[in-house]
Amino acid sequence: MRSDLPVIFSESLIEVRYAETDRMGVVHHSHYPVYFEQGRTKFFQEYLKPYQDFEVEGLFAPVLSYQVELKGHVTYGHILRLETFAKQFRGLRVVMGYSGYVNDKLVVAGESVHALTGPDLIPLHPRKLPAGYQFLKEKFEKLT
Amino acid sequence: MRSDLPVIFSESLIEVRYAETDRMGVVHHSHYPVYFEQGRTKFFQEYLKPYQDFEVEGLFAPVLSYQVELKGHVTYGHILRLETFAKQFRGLRVVMGYSGYVNDKLVVAGESVHALTGPDLIPLHPRKLPAGYQFLKEKFEKLT
Amino acid sequence: MRSDLPVIFSESLIEVRYAETDRMGVVHHSHYPVYFEQGRTKFFQEYLKPYQDFEVEGLFAPVLSYQVELKGHVTYGHILRLETFAKQFRGLRVVMGYSGYVNDKLVVAGESVHALTGPDLIPLHPRKLPAGYQFLKEKFEKLT
Amino acid sequence: MRSDLPVIFSESLIEVRYAETDRMGVVHHSHYPVYFEQGRTKFFQEYLKPYQDFEVEGLFAPVLSYQVELKGHVTYGHILRLETFAKQFRGLRVVMGYSGYVNDKLVVAGESVHALTGPDLIPLHPRKLPAGYQFLKEKFEKLT
Repeated sequence: MRSDLPVIFSESLIEVRYAETDRMGVVHHSHYPVYFEQGRTKFFQEYLKPYQDFEVEGLFAPVLSYQVELKGHVTYGHILRLETFAKQFRGLRVVMGYSGYVNDKLVVAGESVHALTGPDLIPLHPRKLPAGYQFLKEKFEKLT
Repeated sequence: MRSDLPVIFSESLIEVRYAETDRMGVVHHSHYPVYFEQGRTKFFQEYLKPYQDFEVEGLFAPVLSYQVELKGHVTYGHILRLETFAKQFRGLRVVMGYSGYVNDKLVVAGESVHALTGPDLIPLHPRKLPAGYQFLKEKFEKLT
Repeated sequence: MRSDLPVIFSESLIEVRYAETDRMGVVHHSHYPVYFEQGRTKFFQEYLKPYQDFEVEGLFAPVLSYQVELKGHVTYGHILRLETFAKQFRGLRVVMGYSGYVNDKLVVAGESVHALTGPDLIPLHPRKLPAGYQFLKEKFEKLT
Repeated sequence: MRSDLPVIFSESLIEVRYAETDRMGVVHHSHYPVYFEQGRTKFFQEYLKPYQDFEVEGLFAPVLSYQVELKGHVTYGHILRLETFAKQFRGLRVVMGYSGYVNDKLVVAGESVHALTGPDLIPLHPRKLPAGYQFLKEKFEKLT
């Protein structure tokens, strides 16, 4: 069945907040990238190390682009079970993927592409990569 | 130069709010779909009719999918000049496009795909389309 | 020591999200009422019944007013331990209180006042109160 | 009539965004402090100088506490006319006030208390106040 999905993912259980719904009665689409970010936080904790520790070492992963596909109704009272997985590590680019379920039904899917940079979004110098870079690369490549 | 862009667009000047920045110092990427929505509101006002008037007639345009590309730093104190344009109208799908500029530099681009539905996200019956549908279709097709 | 605080409260552990920080490096103050709402959701689940069940019965509790006091730095990587408690039930008014801790230090306190209304914020008729009203009143009075 | 309100205020016209409504059909109460902040931005531009210029000089004004009173329905399609005014300047504390109107009806009122600090919320040393402090104090006192 879902053989195309990576085996390794982290799972976040996200309570949908009232504030996240809009007057159409469902979660406003702009909240999904925030849920995805919460999923990445968990993924980093479980498989790499806390994202804020990379920041302390001078390694940041700002979003370059992302996409979201909405596939079902999600509203207050729902628990979103979000799977977050690594898709690709290439040079100074990282791609993450997301699948979200409510009551075992797929309700959202998405992807985000990240640059690896220094603080203040300053590009990394390929010969002066921060300590965390090699660690991240090795770990990440085993996960994709 | 920008000959690939549609000629017809509406322009929104959006003041970046402090609350929309994150601790990396720039606008958090999840706010762009909200800016795009503000751009659609303006587009509907200028070229169609206010979106809420379609809702009153029973025609809704929930987001099915969207994508965002971040191309530059945007932060508090900036005015985002957002161009919103129609890309496609096909059956019960509408595609809108967005280009955002700060000081004449392109900082964000994106696209959103919308379903046309009834209230509560109920699919429209092709033989019982609400009054606004034909109006929207005719107007929209002239703009793409 | 904290003898002035009510004994009965529900506890929520809220992961601070990156998107909730601002460029000052801490959680933007506008997110606390959202955290408080998440605390109320838990409080209703634990001591009353899920808030959405009241809504289904025609009983809503929109916010009339609220206040927030910030008492410490909170940022990404922190877990906010939020205590939510009932303060008062009087006629068609409910008052809730909140105390939030990071690493056992009080970082935020607040209060919200709610009206009890019908759907669409329509005032309740005192002689036609929805089923949930009496239930809420009795439960709530034991908790304050 | 409104003789108790200060004469000097700045006016912001804020388009309510769809994303800011919740499933009760109105603006979620957590967005008012964001509107107030947009009002402060305008107030600083008109009567002081842009807030970000104070930040560059090392003077920050983080929120210590705030309160919001909701007095009417506000939803998508509305323009909130927000009046922002100075209430008090005392030592290292500043108090601002807000009144918001839709179609000339008062729909929200509020207040925010700010600390004056250095970057990273570091307390100011009373003998080493940043350049902007005296400027802010003098201007502000004329406005309250």
